[in-house]
Amino acid sequence: MRALPLHPGARGLEDDCAVIEVGSETLVLTHDMLVEGTHYRAGADMADVAWKLVATNLSDLAAKGAQPLGVLIGHMLGTDEARFVDGLGESLAHYGVLLLGGDTVSGDGPKAHGLTAIGRATHTPVPSCGGAKAGQAIYVTGELGAAMLGFEGDARFASAYNRPHAMLEEGRALAPLVGAMMDVSDGLLLDCWRMVSASANVAFELESAAIPVVDPARCDECLRWGDDYQLLFTADPAATLPVAAKRIGSVTAAADGAPLRLDGSALTPAGGLGYRHA
Amino acid sequence: MRALPLHPGARGLEDDCAVIEVGSETLVLTHDMLVEGTHYRAGADMADVAWKLVATNLSDLAAKGAQPLGVLIGHMLGTDEARFVDGLGESLAHYGVLLLGGDTVSGDGPKAHGLTAIGRATHTPVPSCGGAKAGQAIYVTGELGAAMLGFEGDARFASAYNRPHAMLEEGRALAPLVGAMMDVSDGLLLDCWRMVSASANVAFELESAAIPVVDPARCDECLRWGDDYQLLFTADPAATLPVAAKRIGSVTAAADGAPLRLDGSALTPAGGLGYRHA
Repeated sequence: MRALPLHPGARGLEDDCAVIEVGSETLVLTHDMLVEGTHYRAGADMADVAWKLVATNLSDLAAKGAQPLGVLIGHMLGTDEARFVDGLGESLAHYGVLLLGGDTVSGDGPKAHGLTAIGRATHTPVPSCGGAKAGQAIYVTGELGAAMLGFEGDARFASAYNRPHAMLEEGRALAPLVGAMMDVSDGLLLDCWRMVSASANVAFELESAAIPVVDPARCDECLRWGDDYQLLFTADPAATLPVAAKRIGSVTAAADGAPLRLDGSALTPAGGLGYRHA
Repeated sequence: MRALPLHPGARGLEDDCAVIEVGSETLVLTHDMLVEGTHYRAGADMADVAWKLVATNLSDLAAKGAQPLGVLIGHMLGTDEARFVDGLGESLAHYGVLLLGGDTVSGDGPKAHGLTAIGRATHTPVPSCGGAKAGQAIYVTGELGAAMLGFEGDARFASAYNRPHAMLEEGRALAPLVGAMMDVSDGLLLDCWRMVSASANVAFELESAAIPVVDPARCDECLRWGDDYQLLFTADPAATLPVAAKRIGSVTAAADGAPLRLDGSALTPAGGLGYRHA
């Protein structure tokens, strides 16, 4: 298979965000898709689908401390266009983000929807998932597992699953302070693995008792389920954080080939760290 | 249905391109999708599909005189990934454009693929499809109908349909000279209708004998078929054009409520001007 000509500010076809410099500006771009039957259930409220499409992409910008400039949408027409447009309009208005354009298409079978979000960096260097340094503490905002309970039908958490929040203001406030930062889209443990793997010569030591979860009796599941879109970041443990976040572990120097430990036990992706979107 | 918060540099969900200013730069963004069964036949060579996905979006940048900065792709995985990646790599290398990132997803049924292209304007004001002025001449590059014959199986024109060319250099050369400019994606007559409708107080008079078509015996079909991606533009009839183009008509002052005439006969979309993507 041919190698793809990759921008130095990108990592590949599944990169969370690309960072490019244009003139005096640093731009952050991301594109994610939602597919019926894969990312949302047939029969879902299309307003929620549109909201999630916007929020998940804006969440990628949030983790870069970027201010959104707008979105472009690629939308396969379905049977409930009014609800889709309602949800799209609601989410864009909620975040104060403008529609730049896009494409609407017809197609048989399950529907697919893509969204590109473009933002301008508010702090450079732009936070990356590879910036963790030994001696930093590991933090996460909010509580994990809310989207899981919402998905399962717990009405208290329905909005956590259906209408996730992109932490744009928090990301911008944190950007100058963090070592590494990313949003927790695919489960805390898997995203910690990605962060430690992208960072040089470090290991992560997590303490399960310190990790905020919505249902402590199901802690393990809460750490592996995705869709919460909280911010995961590393920072100097002495720093005064501008947003509420819990310290969940420490970054140490890489030592014995076990880059990720939970309560002292080594974890690897082979054991299944979390939910993976296809 | 809720109104969408639209960027002033965009026209809506199906805008060809958005133009936004960021710092000292003017950026041009576009997003188009290709759907199996709608835009390409099941069983098509996925390398051609990937090429077309790139070329059709870059063609939108070409019509704005923009220099590509990169692309993001939203790709539903299918059965011939190697060919898709081959074609994607070939087209990006051909145009010297870098991949910025994107998303790959699974899904049942027909596959959908989206691509966002971002470019920087090389000339401001950026050419729009609404800039035609009375007294200008109407021009088109190349010959129309080549993609139609390629689609029908004429081997001489297979590449015109399967691997269209985005006229990036030509668009940049023309940008400082044109009144209005767009790429002919949905058929010359329909795109002329769009151009005249977007321009203020003008009418277009086209002469069929002057319009370059690959098969004069099927002139009418050649003017209504899309997918040729030639550049359609208006300019001062005395201007020396930096690219080869044929004068196909004149821009006049709007008069009698018939904004588009072909050989003196008024045309309207109600009569079916061309191929419309859904």
